[in-house]
Amino acid sequence: MYTVFVVGTAGSGKSTLTSSFSDWLRGQEQSTLLVNLDPAAHSLPYEPDVDVRDYVDYERIMVSRRLGPNAALIASIREVARYVEELKEDVNSFNPDFVIVDTPGQLELFAFRREGLILTENIGVEGRKTMLFILDPIFCTNVKNFVASTFLASSIYLSFGLPMIQVLNKIDAVPREHVERIQGWSESMDSLLVDLEDKLKGGLMVFSREVAQAVYDIISSIPIIPVSSISMEGFPELHAVLTRIVSEGELELR
Amino acid sequence: MYTVFVVGTAGSGKSTLTSSFSDWLRGQEQSTLLVNLDPAAHSLPYEPDVDVRDYVDYERIMVSRRLGPNAALIASIREVARYVEELKEDVNSFNPDFVIVDTPGQLELFAFRREGLILTENIGVEGRKTMLFILDPIFCTNVKNFVASTFLASSIYLSFGLPMIQVLNKIDAVPREHVERIQGWSESMDSLLVDLEDKLKGGLMVFSREVAQAVYDIISSIPIIPVSSISMEGFPELHAVLTRIVSEGELELR
Repeated sequence: MYTVFVVGTAGSGKSTLTSSFSDWLRGQEQSTLLVNLDPAAHSLPYEPDVDVRDYVDYERIMVSRRLGPNAALIASIREVARYVEELKEDVNSFNPDFVIVDTPGQLELFAFRREGLILTENIGVEGRKTMLFILDPIFCTNVKNFVASTFLASSIYLSFGLPMIQVLNKIDAVPREHVERIQGWSESMDSLLVDLEDKLKGGLMVFSREVAQAVYDIISSIPIIPVSSISMEGFPELHAVLTRIVSEGELELR
Repeated sequence: MYTVFVVGTAGSGKSTLTSSFSDWLRGQEQSTLLVNLDPAAHSLPYEPDVDVRDYVDYERIMVSRRLGPNAALIASIREVARYVEELKEDVNSFNPDFVIVDTPGQLELFAFRREGLILTENIGVEGRKTMLFILDPIFCTNVKNFVASTFLASSIYLSFGLPMIQVLNKIDAVPREHVERIQGWSESMDSLLVDLEDKLKGGLMVFSREVAQAVYDIISSIPIIPVSSISMEGFPELHAVLTRIVSEGELELR
């Protein structure tokens, strides 16, 4: 049983990827369990097998505690963590090849609060978990935003300590050369540095080389796989990297 | 006119700091304008002078477009960016010493979408803007989370390109030695690495050593000021760093 946590900023396409990739996995005769961890999910493009909304009701929390939407999101994720044992048992009662866990819409509720850590530590089998960090190719077309995304990914990588794969999602939505440029940055530090020096100015430019080096070190441990949740392009590669990482274990993080 | 954008993850205390620091500034006879950019703010601890909720109604967007809370937050911030000219004029019609801009509750709606960039580029006077990134001392007590927060801050620093100050907020809520430990990490690379190597294992340890080293140069250009919004401790230091950064300009980024 491999457990895959899908994380990314709001609107990056976590739920769509969860839905589409699980369809693909099932097409490969891999049994797949879908978990929704977002108590505020309104509608989902898939039918969750384990659904946190069975335990936590965002709307009820907002109304009964008279909270605004932001405070209610925080209160909800706290409540989710209280049901971690139930969620763990729900997942363990199945024994699928893959567990795909779709995380809350707002990344920071999961990634920068202790509740996220409690959930990833308890759901799935130790040593057989990975995290998919979704990159938005429209945001990442600008080299500064690409670097910002990479730093964000490494931030999450460090705090969770799980092997991570960056998924460059929605490649159907941007010209092919944008995807190639992003892949180029991840493959050649020089190409990243040239484009970065062109975009940064003044005091920030002094950091170009250090930043490029840091980003390059990070990316060498976090592969980037371009995929489309619409055409399913890239899913065989994603599946191959996932199984390799989980089967080879922690020593193969880099 | 100095413009200060207050950013941080949900619950880090952006609005409380906005309120308390502006009280302090006014006590120093600095005229201060308060701007709320969160269309989903339910109640605020201060009275905004310019309020995005006069233009964008989160609840109405949610109901009229039949969106869930996450999708409605994204739609709202898009709508906010459409009113950027109005917001700019509202701010410019005053001419205060300080403009304090409280940003949306969910950091990623502002920091990892192009709307955030549009707003910071248009509000305030070029070359006289800074960003306060709020650190939560409870989250940052763990060295991995401290590094994760620093990566997050660098990510935002690079994509906005504004001088940044990290504000270690809520120091009244944690033991003094926690604050000192966090300050120690920011002042000595060795102390950071010793604690980090103690916490990380396997492949992650190699990764952290290289990356922490490279990113340390960036950290050194983002000072950390411990403050309490309750006791106002640290506000004189914050004010001093703010005015120094803005008056000395970009060359003093490091």
